[in-house]
Amino acid sequence: MQTISENKCFGGIQGVYTHASEACGCNMTFGLFLPEAANEGAVPVLWYLSGLTCTHENAMVKAGAQTWAAEHGIALVFPDTSPRGKGVADDEAYDLGQGAGFYVNATEAPWARHFRMWDYLADELPNIVGATFAIDEDRQAITGHSMGGHGALTLAMRLPGRFRSVSAFAPICHPTQSDWGRKQLAAYLGADESLWAGHDATLLMRRLGFDGPVLIDQGSKDQFLDLLKPEALAAAMAERRQNGQFRIQPGYDHSYFFVASFMEDHLRFHADALYR
Amino acid sequence: MQTISENKCFGGIQGVYTHASEACGCNMTFGLFLPEAANEGAVPVLWYLSGLTCTHENAMVKAGAQTWAAEHGIALVFPDTSPRGKGVADDEAYDLGQGAGFYVNATEAPWARHFRMWDYLADELPNIVGATFAIDEDRQAITGHSMGGHGALTLAMRLPGRFRSVSAFAPICHPTQSDWGRKQLAAYLGADESLWAGHDATLLMRRLGFDGPVLIDQGSKDQFLDLLKPEALAAAMAERRQNGQFRIQPGYDHSYFFVASFMEDHLRFHADALYR
Repeated sequence: MQTISENKCFGGIQGVYTHASEACGCNMTFGLFLPEAANEGAVPVLWYLSGLTCTHENAMVKAGAQTWAAEHGIALVFPDTSPRGKGVADDEAYDLGQGAGFYVNATEAPWARHFRMWDYLADELPNIVGATFAIDEDRQAITGHSMGGHGALTLAMRLPGRFRSVSAFAPICHPTQSDWGRKQLAAYLGADESLWAGHDATLLMRRLGFDGPVLIDQGSKDQFLDLLKPEALAAAMAERRQNGQFRIQPGYDHSYFFVASFMEDHLRFHADALYR
Repeated sequence: MQTISENKCFGGIQGVYTHASEACGCNMTFGLFLPEAANEGAVPVLWYLSGLTCTHENAMVKAGAQTWAAEHGIALVFPDTSPRGKGVADDEAYDLGQGAGFYVNATEAPWARHFRMWDYLADELPNIVGATFAIDEDRQAITGHSMGGHGALTLAMRLPGRFRSVSAFAPICHPTQSDWGRKQLAAYLGADESLWAGHDATLLMRRLGFDGPVLIDQGSKDQFLDLLKPEALAAAMAERRQNGQFRIQPGYDHSYFFVASFMEDHLRFHADALYR
């Protein structure tokens, strides 16, 4: 693993690291914030998965999460959203290929060789981060924005016992029924829609739910409401009697200004679960 | 004035606006955060001047200032760092020309026609902002980072009565004695060094000081310490018995991670002065 940069930040260290990924078959870069509390022992960790077009960097510099992670003594991991580089398949569209991994293991050409973000985030990166940094693997939580909210919710529900809490900012809620989803799941997983169900937060909520608290924030002025389909997940949470909150935030859009505005709440929510 | 964007942010509005600038002879773009409190009446304002290579946008998305401005009910203005556009002079170096206005009125060719950032920030933009938004012009404060810290300090000292408080993150402290200064002041103002003195925070501190509190934060691991010359300003502040604090922050560098880490302190410092 190579250190790209380390900057002191809110008493801790905001680092950026690159490593050869076995799952993705290319070099992968991630950001990791270690709070000052990590000097005295392993700290709990919150995973932050980003949305379409983002790298590890966007949320790391724009979401304001370190402010509150430092206060609560929580580490943050900011993974990339796809494999990248020469020799990695891509598409001209912003919503397919590099920057748009959708947190699945692709089975179809030309994606199958590198696009294994599920394995990368479910297994490889947690092992690397846990072995390298002062992180308590028994206390993990996960959040994300947009496509990253989709990733956070699907990982949380399908890896029971892994995460104590899950939250999301304006997640893609029902990708099997949205143009943010159908195109990508068909490209990565093939035409058989039964294989898509494991990557749809609404379907997983109906079938599995989450064994812990859930917090969803969605802006009422989000320019992508038709693609996100928040009503599907809200209904599924209510039908299941899922422990959780689904909040509409009046006037907010899809931007990082929205994410930053509610980051304090999300960190407090996760801290409550991680320090219980 | 044209609205480029408005995003709800921490209960207020983060806007970006463009207008034809008389001072600079080109269109100028600035960011302005209005807290929710502005719905009920004019609010105090904190000017944030940015550093080399920045536009209005960098601090607006990376410094985390809205978090605390919302809490204290303070508006934020994020001006650009120079005139821009086709027909505006420029230089290949990152530290001269567009993105590097140094907050002066240039008198020398080819800069004199557009590079009038002092007039723009001392007169034109305050008038526009005051006439357009719910801002209390009697309660203004100013801060900045690096070249913007230089701008904040020189404007504050040379416009007595305008600002109630001034702060800076890693400011260029003594440009008449630094490669971040001599080259630019010579280019913009000409070879007569006596004309440079009005744009050197250390010289102004010795001669004028500031009629209010001053807060300076400087990281001990800043990669540009030799160019910033913090020791010159610290000595001048102490010699003058200036009301203020000069703080070395161990381990911090020159990045926005440093700026964001101490933004809460700076907003509280300015709020104390603005609400006294």
